[in-house]
Amino acid sequence: MASMLDVPADLLPVHQCVSRTLARVEERIASALASDLPPVERLCRHVEKYRGKMIRPTLVALAAMACRPDEAPLDRAVTEAHIVSGAVCEMVHLATLVHDDVLDEADVRRRAATVNSLHGNEAAVILGDYLFSAAYRLCATLDTPDTTLLIGTVGMTLCAGELLQLHNRQNFSLDENTYFEIVDRKTASLIAAACRLGARHAGAGPDAADRFESFGRSLGIAFQIQDDLLDLTGDQAVVGKSLGKDLEKGKLTLPLIHHLASSRPEQRGRTLTLLEATSGPHQRGAAEDALAGALADTGSIDHARRTAERLVAQAKSALAPLPESPARSMLLMMADAVVTRAF
Amino acid sequence: MASMLDVPADLLPVHQCVSRTLARVEERIASALASDLPPVERLCRHVEKYRGKMIRPTLVALAAMACRPDEAPLDRAVTEAHIVSGAVCEMVHLATLVHDDVLDEADVRRRAATVNSLHGNEAAVILGDYLFSAAYRLCATLDTPDTTLLIGTVGMTLCAGELLQLHNRQNFSLDENTYFEIVDRKTASLIAAACRLGARHAGAGPDAADRFESFGRSLGIAFQIQDDLLDLTGDQAVVGKSLGKDLEKGKLTLPLIHHLASSRPEQRGRTLTLLEATSGPHQRGAAEDALAGALADTGSIDHARRTAERLVAQAKSALAPLPESPARSMLLMMADAVVTRAF
Repeated sequence: MASMLDVPADLLPVHQCVSRTLARVEERIASALASDLPPVERLCRHVEKYRGKMIRPTLVALAAMACRPDEAPLDRAVTEAHIVSGAVCEMVHLATLVHDDVLDEADVRRRAATVNSLHGNEAAVILGDYLFSAAYRLCATLDTPDTTLLIGTVGMTLCAGELLQLHNRQNFSLDENTYFEIVDRKTASLIAAACRLGARHAGAGPDAADRFESFGRSLGIAFQIQDDLLDLTGDQAVVGKSLGKDLEKGKLTLPLIHHLASSRPEQRGRTLTLLEATSGPHQRGAAEDALAGALADTGSIDHARRTAERLVAQAKSALAPLPESPARSMLLMMADAVVTRAF
Repeated sequence: MASMLDVPADLLPVHQCVSRTLARVEERIASALASDLPPVERLCRHVEKYRGKMIRPTLVALAAMACRPDEAPLDRAVTEAHIVSGAVCEMVHLATLVHDDVLDEADVRRRAATVNSLHGNEAAVILGDYLFSAAYRLCATLDTPDTTLLIGTVGMTLCAGELLQLHNRQNFSLDENTYFEIVDRKTASLIAAACRLGARHAGAGPDAADRFESFGRSLGIAFQIQDDLLDLTGDQAVVGKSLGKDLEKGKLTLPLIHHLASSRPEQRGRTLTLLEATSGPHQRGAAEDALAGALADTGSIDHARRTAERLVAQAKSALAPLPESPARSMLLMMADAVVTRAF
């Protein structure tokens, strides 16, 4: 994620420390996934292509540095427990991506063919399980069980969020509260955990750890809303994954929920017809264009954008009481970048 | 599993202690899976119907009692760590069952409709992930990370075994060594871990813990061979799950591997044709009967039975140096039951 930022000179040392941390996290993931069986090894190598912005390990590292602003060199703030936590968060995230692609029948992920499209759903389901197990195993290399306890809880939370989403598929009366409940669980919980682990393993007290968690939670929800927007309005070549999948799988996104709730009955009826057409084989492009027009008419794209911006402001305010530091500045910049990113 | 045994009077106290332990394990699983979300709660309640013989928690309890033969009452040998270990092993096992049913497209599991057949593959994949996370979370409630480390390692091992099996699907030249490699990983590793955890948490030294693990490993492989035999020769109404699935999914089982390796080229060709027919829509029953005949001609069913019996003898000899106790006798009875069971 830090790589998306146009980093000013005074933040370069933090940026470089993040890069060094990410390199260590990558190594740790590779060694945690290593297998003596060539077919397993091959699949693990493939999953490495999914690696994207590494937001979660980046947040672990930045939270650590923000909690210990006086460490020199900066890298001293990043401990073994941070490397493990960052790797674990990324591995859990990768596992959910691999399984999501099975559920979404997606063919492309970060410009690489998905495991399911290349090797079938079976290999993808088992590989996801392998990633989960490797993540928990790595957790258990830490001295205390706290990290495993938190990651286990988050693992359950994010699955519960996915199940709630699945349960509400094609529910065109889904309200915003339930939407936020789903997103909080399935996306924000792991991002919040990454921030909390970064702070906790840097010796932060309960208050500061809560602030970082709260930062991550707001950031995570904003991040998902931006993902929703990109799924509707993004460019597949830029985003690097299959788009329009939310609509196709009957997942209601924030713009659509707002639109359906604020439309008059006739318009609602027309939109539902358009939604059906966007997943059909005919006139799909035309239906998508008409839908985009309808969403614009009710100001629903703007509503989602404003909501994401409000969440970013909330995230930033959670870190306001912390002492100023380059790492804190970088976290605030990352928060802003969530709603301006095009990928 | 103990419920399959015709328990002699002198083993009744052990049997009753196992029953009490299993009741505690069941409660622990239910509380570990509890969710505030009704759709999640519903799926978890459904999975409880999958609960079968509870072999893994039974082994945890019996290993504990066999390591502390002098405890009175017997229940004092079964600690909190045993309840957690038993619950964790069963939950990991349930998670793999839920995912296996997706992979196998199975409709029936222990006489209940599978999650995938009732709620779709998506719910089943996420539910399996939920079960895994809940298992690891429960592990982390123990003071030391050893159990999580072992279960995490076993989780990776069993996925690797499944991937190796998948990689060898339709490989009609699969040799017995690779077959044992697959079975050791995908089935025996968790059963071996249950035995080791039972012993370790009862204060067994490294040698005794190794003996219990080795008992579980041989038992687990024998168990899988018996499963292979039941898939070929069992009665669905008795076994309680879809049969013939191994053949249909191109999984080579021990009788078939032996048959193909010991057949002359013409017979090999005929068998491969029959195998194709068993997964086709026409004359399936006739093809299955002819296949059973071919397997009998090369003595392959007998070969698999004898191999399972040899493994059971190996398992029992691993426990031979331990002091005699009712729990040890029950473990030996369980080992014998593995190859005589019809379900």
